[in-house]
Formats: sequence, C-alpha cells, structure tokens
Amino acid sequence: MKLLTIDQGAGNPGVLLKGGDVLNLSLMPEGLLSDGWRPKSVREILERGEEGLESIRRMIGAVEGDIEACAGAITEFEDTELLAPIPNPWMVFSVGMNYGRHLAEMSNTPPPEHPAGFIKTRDSLLGSGKAIKVPPQCPDWIDYEGEFCFVFGRECHAVSEADAMEYVAGYTIANDVSARDWIPDIKKGEPPFGPIHGWERNILGKNLPGFTPCGPVIVTKDEIADPYDLHLQTRLNGEVMQDTKTDDLIFKLPEIISYYSQWYRFHPGDVVTTGSPAGVGIGRDPHVFMSAGDTIEIELEGVGVLSNTLS
Amino acid sequence: MKLLTIDQGAGNPGVLLKGGDVLNLSLMPEGLLSDGWRPKSVREILERGEEGLESIRRMIGAVEGDIEACAGAITEFEDTELLAPIPNPWMVFSVGMNYGRHLAEMSNTPPPEHPAGFIKTRDSLLGSGKAIKVPPQCPDWIDYEGEFCFVFGRECHAVSEADAMEYVAGYTIANDVSARDWIPDIKKGEPPFGPIHGWERNILGKNLPGFTPCGPVIVTKDEIADPYDLHLQTRLNGEVMQDTKTDDLIFKLPEIISYYSQWYRFHPGDVVTTGSPAGVGIGRDPHVFMSAGDTIEIELEGVGVLSNTLS
Repeated sequence: MKLLTIDQGAGNPGVLLKGGDVLNLSLMPEGLLSDGWRPKSVREILERGEEGLESIRRMIGAVEGDIEACAGAITEFEDTELLAPIPNPWMVFSVGMNYGRHLAEMSNTPPPEHPAGFIKTRDSLLGSGKAIKVPPQCPDWIDYEGEFCFVFGRECHAVSEADAMEYVAGYTIANDVSARDWIPDIKKGEPPFGPIHGWERNILGKNLPGFTPCGPVIVTKDEIADPYDLHLQTRLNGEVMQDTKTDDLIFKLPEIISYYSQWYRFHPGDVVTTGSPAGVGIGRDPHVFMSAGDTIEIELEGVGVLSNTLS
Repeated sequence: MKLLTIDQGAGNPGVLLKGGDVLNLSLMPEGLLSDGWRPKSVREILERGEEGLESIRRMIGAVEGDIEACAGAITEFEDTELLAPIPNPWMVFSVGMNYGRHLAEMSNTPPPEHPAGFIKTRDSLLGSGKAIKVPPQCPDWIDYEGEFCFVFGRECHAVSEADAMEYVAGYTIANDVSARDWIPDIKKGEPPFGPIHGWERNILGKNLPGFTPCGPVIVTKDEIADPYDLHLQTRLNGEVMQDTKTDDLIFKLPEIISYYSQWYRFHPGDVVTTGSPAGVGIGRDPHVFMSAGDTIEIELEGVGVLSNTLS
C-alpha cells in the first residue's frame, strides 16, 4: 500500500491506487469507510499500527468495488498537489556517511565504527512536485543527496537489533539537500572550521526550509521483499548523477534503529534518511551544483519518483 | 507575567499569580475570560503575540478583582504538577560553548568564531518537579548544565541582529542534562572518536527522554530589564556547582538569533538554551556526576527555580 498526504486542509491523507490515481481519504463517501473511521492524517494511520493499515486496505477494497461512488474522492496523480507523506513528524533523522562508495568520494573518509547522524527540522520537509527555494543568503553551492528512507510505525526506544524491524512501518525517498557554501572555507582551513564546526556547519546547511523533499509516498513494509535489493537513482535535469543498489549501505536498518534508539525515542511517522550513495555534486570534479530552473529526481525501486524543481 | 503548563489533559496553560499561586486558565470561569477566548496552550498564547499576552493580562486582572469566583481554578504552586512551559515546541535548540569560563574548564577550548549549536528533541523536555530517569543503558556519567533560555514569540527566519529581539517572547531555564559515558573512550583516543563523532556523541548523550528539564515558567520579556545581568546558579543537593552572571555569555541573543535564523526557521514557542556556565560535573577534578536520589536545582534571577530529582 502506498500512503501519501495531499496538500489540502491540514494535509489530507490519501492512497495511491493500483491504477495510478489518488484516493483522498478525507473525501471518501461515509458509507465506504471502515468502521466509520475517517483518518485525519497518515501519521494517525501509522499510530493505529497493523489495525490502521488493515482498515485502509478494506477501504481500498470498497473503493475498487464501487469506483463510481468514489469519483469525487479520486484525482489523477499528476494533478494532485502533495506534501511530504508525513508533513509534521515528531522527528526527521538523517544518517550520514553510510554508503561505501560515497565515503570514498568524500576525501576518502574511512568508514565509521558507528553510524553518524543528525536531526533535520520538520520545516525542511517538502512534498514531491513542490519547488525547492534557493535561499538568497547562500545560493551558490546547493547540492542533492538521494536517500532511501524508512518510517517508524511504533514508539521505539532502547531496542535490540533483533527486534528493530518490528518498529518499521514502511519506506520512502528523501532528498537531503545541502547548502555547501562553507566548503570553500574549510578547504582554505579558515576559522571556525575546527573538528566540531565542520560537522555543525554541514548540518546547518541541510536545515533550510524545504531542504528535505520527501515522498511521493510511503510504501508499507509488506510490499518490499528485500530493502537492500532496491535500485536508487538520482537524476539532475534527466542526467544520472547517483546510481546504486541499497546493498552498498554500511549500516543496515536494524543497526541504525538499535544504535540510535539507545538515546532517542522515536515515534510513529518519524522518518530516517539512511545516507547518500556516491555521486553528490560536491564529490565531482568539477563540482556540480543546482540552481533555479533545475529539476532533481530521485527514483527508488518499488516506491516511485521524488521530483522537485528549484526556484 | 509568568506562564506555565500544568500536567493536566493535553497540558493546560496557566499563570503564576503575584501571590505565588497558580491560575489554571482551562478552569477559569467563562465570565472572566477575555473576549471569550480560552487558550488551549501556552504556545497558542505566544502565537497570538502581544495581543495574546494582553488578553492574559486582562484575565489576571479580572481574577485578582474577584478571587472568590476563581477559587476552583487556583492551586498552590507546590501542589501543581508541571510540564515544561512549552511541552511540544516545534524545536528545542541548544547553543554550546557559550560561556567564557566554561570553555576554560573544558580542556581550554578556544572561544569559537560563531556559536556552536544542536537540536534537542521534544522528548527530552521535562517539567520542573518531575523525575529525571537514569537510563539503564548509560547510568554512570550523568551531568547537569544549568542554562538561561529564551523563547521565540514569532516565526523567525533570516533576520538581522538589529531586529532579532523583536522575535523573543520571554525567558526560561533549562537543564541540559548529558550522559557523558563516551568521555572515557575519547580520552583513551578510542575509535570512533574522530572529529565528527565526538560532537555527534556529545549530542546523542543529551537527547535521552527527560534530559531537558525546562521551566518552571516562561517570564515575558517586559519583566526582565537586562537579560545579561541575571544571576544563574546550579545546586546539586543544595551545594552550589555553577554560579555566574549571564554577562559571561560570549554570544548574546541577537547574535544567536540572527546567525541560526540564516538556516533554521523558528516558530513561536521554540526554546533556545544559550549554553552552560563553568562548573559542570565533567569539568571538575574529581568528576561529579548525578545518580538516583540526587536533587538538581537551577535558579535564574527573575524567573525562578527549576528543580528535579533523579530516579
């Protein structure tokens, strides 16, 4: 099942139907709801766990059995404005330095002993199809990072690797956009780029409003047989920039979840981006950065295409 | 005016009256509300800006004029269970390395050219009077950091230092608690403590549930003549551990706000902790850490005492 959030009201929950159209659960006829439940958000669906997902499956079945009755709740995907699938999660967490070949391109950074991660703000989230606004205060070194993501389905704190996957509801795509204008200074060795400030500035440049496009959908876990056998590709104006299988991930989901849950408490709907593969703009010679008018697409096998234009 | 959140329902907004009692705005008699408005949260009050604060001032006036009519809405401070003043902000942001004498105690770290900050989760927030739970997975090196905080009153992105203070609604106190169990490894130089991982592990150890006690109240800006002339004191089981004036702050509020707003977009109710003064447990010889049964109090002149016991 593919869940999404429509840019209507406070963010109406919807489903991508098999035929490719979007069902707006907020406009479903009353009689086709499951147990009279009209979910207010994708997060509310996830908070109900497997029962919530089963209810949505029943609603989809009812719709497919009486498509006429639902005409008012169905739109074409291309005509549907989207938000991030979870527009207001408790937390967006990004794991960095997690693809072998990406580390090689970033000054041959050795693989870390543990994952290295950071929080991104909810304000950085953006729906597929929405414009990434080039910030006037740092417009010149805007980079992309296409990332395979997972979404929590249950509250999760201090769990073991063996249990970790029970907390995952599904998968999605994110673009971990960066303003890398601090890199020229770090290369010159200029202050304040000591050990702490380089990493801190890296994180700042990833937290501008709209710098985490996410979606278009969350695919529930049952639809992905092997999360480490997915093709992930980033295209800038149609040209392939990143192209990998998720099998190049250094830390797999159970390790990420178990490790970070020793400190953080995750909630249903929290999104974790698992790191970027090789091919980012800053790792290229010459560098490739994005500017207004460019279109950046990230395609993940089994999930779809996250597409955004810069403005 | 001193705003607080009572641990009732979804977090009822309240006011600390001049006499020291708490007025629960959710239980105010209908007839004493201002324009019939019953605020649902302290965040909602801040979101209404100066108008929201004026409404609350009128309600306080009405209560003080007819204290009998409000008896059911008034409790003694000591008997009132509190949450953090804003229990669910959009963001909690912590500025580190911001007191001259604290930097001197942390291996003589030189003062940074810019502030160094990080996000803390909403799950780390805790009300004054609530127990800080010692995490079983890292119980041994639990440290305190008493911090002077400010709270945003308006959405704030890419603002100048000159305008910055217009975005501040008031002030509060936080304890930036840390699990510092990673420090022995960093001293031994053990992996993975390269430049990135030291700072990252520092942040992880600050993000356990309940590791940001905050409050007891937010004092509105008009009540503090000079935010850099406040006495800030941390006491562990009554013994003074940190004792400073806020004039030792390296980066003042306008610099913090203007700098970080170039990337982040802040929202009304967002809390920023401005850094810890000298005297933290890890900076002492021998180290002083907290354990179950200890009481840690942070007192900020003009605001009050944030008090928590470990369990």
